[in-house]
Amino acid sequence: MDYYSGQISRLIEELSRLPGIGSKSAARLAFHLIHMPVEEVERLADTMVDARKNVRYCRQCYTLTDQELCPICSNQERDQKTIMVVETTRDLAAYEKTGKYKGVYHVLHGAISPMIGVGPGDIKLKELIERLQGEVDEVIIATNSSLEGETTAMYISKLIKPAGIKVSRIASGVPVGGDLEYIDEVTLLRALEGRTQL
Amino acid sequence: MDYYSGQISRLIEELSRLPGIGSKSAARLAFHLIHMPVEEVERLADTMVDARKNVRYCRQCYTLTDQELCPICSNQERDQKTIMVVETTRDLAAYEKTGKYKGVYHVLHGAISPMIGVGPGDIKLKELIERLQGEVDEVIIATNSSLEGETTAMYISKLIKPAGIKVSRIASGVPVGGDLEYIDEVTLLRALEGRTQL
Repeated sequence: MDYYSGQISRLIEELSRLPGIGSKSAARLAFHLIHMPVEEVERLADTMVDARKNVRYCRQCYTLTDQELCPICSNQERDQKTIMVVETTRDLAAYEKTGKYKGVYHVLHGAISPMIGVGPGDIKLKELIERLQGEVDEVIIATNSSLEGETTAMYISKLIKPAGIKVSRIASGVPVGGDLEYIDEVTLLRALEGRTQL
Repeated sequence: MDYYSGQISRLIEELSRLPGIGSKSAARLAFHLIHMPVEEVERLADTMVDARKNVRYCRQCYTLTDQELCPICSNQERDQKTIMVVETTRDLAAYEKTGKYKGVYHVLHGAISPMIGVGPGDIKLKELIERLQGEVDEVIIATNSSLEGETTAMYISKLIKPAGIKVSRIASGVPVGGDLEYIDEVTLLRALEGRTQL
């Protein structure tokens, strides 16, 4: 791509490394950035670096946050005894968008997948078990309905049911193989209402 | 989007202002950035700001470059007496990708469009006329085959033909209404070979 001069080529190359951005989109973005006011480009650049540096795991639920304790865990109006287990922060956001769930979350940051070598020790499962030492009414497992998500759900259920804690799984309103993040809110709510005890 | 904490929301918001990036893609990008090594995020951020600050117009052909004179204009192996007039730097890149054009360019940064109030004074047309005071064998007009591109081609042709300079237009191998940037190289070359004198 040396028909663009050095700095433009470098920018296009850097941008095309991001997920979902091919070389055409990268060029389009690069030229857009070059025509933006310089202070807007600086603000975007600073926001990226700040977010990368300051965002960490919530010490209770392990969602990504810029605080010690995330806004959901520190909200006393939320039911702190009902824990919904999700794979990612984006899945948490999908349930938050429904505006109806009043409990808290636990973000695993992945799912058990022997195929790609992800075991129970590679996700935030130990941390979930530790949380269950406190007062907990119910654990709602909302992992994806993929093979990995179902495996993880079964694993968690077998692990914590002996402790006498109520464990449920969101209903199969969620289409099999679907990605939680892209499902409409009505389906998400139906799945929550129809959850079955494991 | 307050189910994400402040810095993540801000990042998603900034990213979703970019062209072709919706809120879902912005979230995907944001989480990708948060999981990237901090030095890679800083490098991307610096590249953006540097490109924005250092990229300017080539003083001869007005393409975007980080040098006083772009690599094409300063290359003495290129035919400096044949000038291809294009609308954007990306159109220039499209012709450069064919690897067969040996002349130089002139980037207008737009096309005449009375509909949206873009007149001849709003694109780099005066600058083209000034260039023609020097030694020029041929001006090849390679504006898009859209209404605006054709209008611009006719305007340029009427303006410079009286001066006795050979003016040509790339052939209509380029599909009408198509965007030069997205056309395959074979079609682009056919259009160049079949150019007709205006």
